[in-house]
Amino acid sequence: MSENRQVLISALPEEELEISNFSVESNPIPSPERGEVLCRTLALTVGAGQRAGLQGSAGYAGAPRTDVVMGGTGVARVEESLDPLLSPGDLVMGGTGWQEYSCGPASDWIRLDASLDPAIHLGVLGTNGLTAYFGLLEIGKPERGETVVVSAAAGSVGHLVGQIARLQGSRVVGVAGSNKKCSLLVEELGFDAAVNYKSPDFRTEFKKATPDRIDVYFDNTGGDILGSALFRMNSHGRIVCCGAVSQYDTKNPDPSPRGIPGLLVNNRVRMEGFLFFDYAERHSEGRRQLRSWLESGMIDARVTEFQGLDRAPEAFVALLGGRTFGTTIVRIHE
Amino acid sequence: MSENRQVLISALPEEELEISNFSVESNPIPSPERGEVLCRTLALTVGAGQRAGLQGSAGYAGAPRTDVVMGGTGVARVEESLDPLLSPGDLVMGGTGWQEYSCGPASDWIRLDASLDPAIHLGVLGTNGLTAYFGLLEIGKPERGETVVVSAAAGSVGHLVGQIARLQGSRVVGVAGSNKKCSLLVEELGFDAAVNYKSPDFRTEFKKATPDRIDVYFDNTGGDILGSALFRMNSHGRIVCCGAVSQYDTKNPDPSPRGIPGLLVNNRVRMEGFLFFDYAERHSEGRRQLRSWLESGMIDARVTEFQGLDRAPEAFVALLGGRTFGTTIVRIHE
Repeated sequence: MSENRQVLISALPEEELEISNFSVESNPIPSPERGEVLCRTLALTVGAGQRAGLQGSAGYAGAPRTDVVMGGTGVARVEESLDPLLSPGDLVMGGTGWQEYSCGPASDWIRLDASLDPAIHLGVLGTNGLTAYFGLLEIGKPERGETVVVSAAAGSVGHLVGQIARLQGSRVVGVAGSNKKCSLLVEELGFDAAVNYKSPDFRTEFKKATPDRIDVYFDNTGGDILGSALFRMNSHGRIVCCGAVSQYDTKNPDPSPRGIPGLLVNNRVRMEGFLFFDYAERHSEGRRQLRSWLESGMIDARVTEFQGLDRAPEAFVALLGGRTFGTTIVRIHE
Repeated sequence: MSENRQVLISALPEEELEISNFSVESNPIPSPERGEVLCRTLALTVGAGQRAGLQGSAGYAGAPRTDVVMGGTGVARVEESLDPLLSPGDLVMGGTGWQEYSCGPASDWIRLDASLDPAIHLGVLGTNGLTAYFGLLEIGKPERGETVVVSAAAGSVGHLVGQIARLQGSRVVGVAGSNKKCSLLVEELGFDAAVNYKSPDFRTEFKKATPDRIDVYFDNTGGDILGSALFRMNSHGRIVCCGAVSQYDTKNPDPSPRGIPGLLVNNRVRMEGFLFFDYAERHSEGRRQLRSWLESGMIDARVTEFQGLDRAPEAFVALLGGRTFGTTIVRIHE
């Protein structure tokens, strides 16, 4: 416990991300200054959006750099505090990065309910859950009896979007990358249908799964799946632009989908991007609702776990390769 | 006056529309049946959207046919009425088509204020004005001090969008296809700036004309201009998808603009298609407001006129070639 293990970005990926884009180092544990706390990371979440952050293009988070600790959100325990806001033993969430210890202003951390598992805080009550909640309800605005389609449906955001849409009385269709994921969505998470986008008959199967066409499409992928959905939107349909995972892990992103703006005009479709932090004032409302659904068994929050900080790169590569289900979590410490 | 001259679509255009795609015929004047009226066309309006209707792809108006009278909206005078709704001498607007006389159910016509010029009814108080009004105010929702950009700014819809946006206190930038049009927009219609998209330095000039970037982009063109605007949208910007004139008069439409959905997500941009008839219940409200602005001199409704039914194809070709300003009108009869 005298060293701080850290995962650094050693080289920016040019094609698909590989474990070799990262390196592990040990450095001294930092010391907090006045107003700061020292935290020990218990668990991290890994998300596809972080891959976008490693692309050369300027995203909302700025340009990527190498030889720095990989950024990321984690749940941590306060070890030492030089600020009255937090005390040793408090459970907190914040930008821990991929390292065992981190140090920073006490006000940068959110104090958590210590009775819940860190994976719950990082998944359904964290960025992923809030993204699903506000994106679907505020941008998509699904109504009873409407058809809601979600891509990357087995992902951290997608598997929650589908379940929240079901609670609104909508018919829910997931798009995912394997037959196994599709079965899980329908058999265990209550989706009305699910379609494997890797199937050679994807377009036919997608059409069959959406006989009343689409009222709300929650887009986590961009690319071809967005293109297919655009051609099946009902009049006054809504497309929630949440992310474009199909475009992150490559140096040759797909061209934009065909038919823009013509299809939007003819069908009066609204296509709208959002980021969960635009709803910061309402995060506690969202967390309260998600927790109540979770505790009453109305939604099921799934997690894929990796044990140990050193496996964070592997978890990230597995996530991007479509080999995880639900929220991807790296456990670092009890 | 014993014959009904008609302009027919003789061949669907495969590339740019030509006058030879039309033919003129003379046929007997139709006779109204019970519940119908016979109308004599006074003036027609020609719009770029009609070119979309001649494309093979299924638009909202269905597939195009040949050897039929070219469809279109006109202002007409009732000559004979077999319905109590209308009387001979009434001024009406409706789907006259490109012909001197038309016959149809009295309830299909809208009775007009006979004290106004037909060109006013067809332009600023017609589809074009209502499209500008509802598209800008209901979809774009410009606020005081925001930057509004409109493409095809010298067109029937565009020149009104810019003026209505100025009345909301926005800074207005037009994009048009010649230096002459750009000068007119700025010097005569009060636009704050205008950029010629045919200029070799268009991107630089466009950037210079939008130093605070773009809050509302009213898109009449699609294609490259939409692509340029997408890269200059402010956070929470709105793109009003009204039409795609750059894509109608060709068999090789441009690919969709780059960066969709990534740019929409990063900048939380809303991109929304609409058609003016979705606001049918509010058309009289819109007409009242537009008329009041017009009569108080707060907006200036421009028209390019062609004299005689036989020149309707020429008017249409001129419009698509960018050689008209404001609403394009074909006068047929006093």
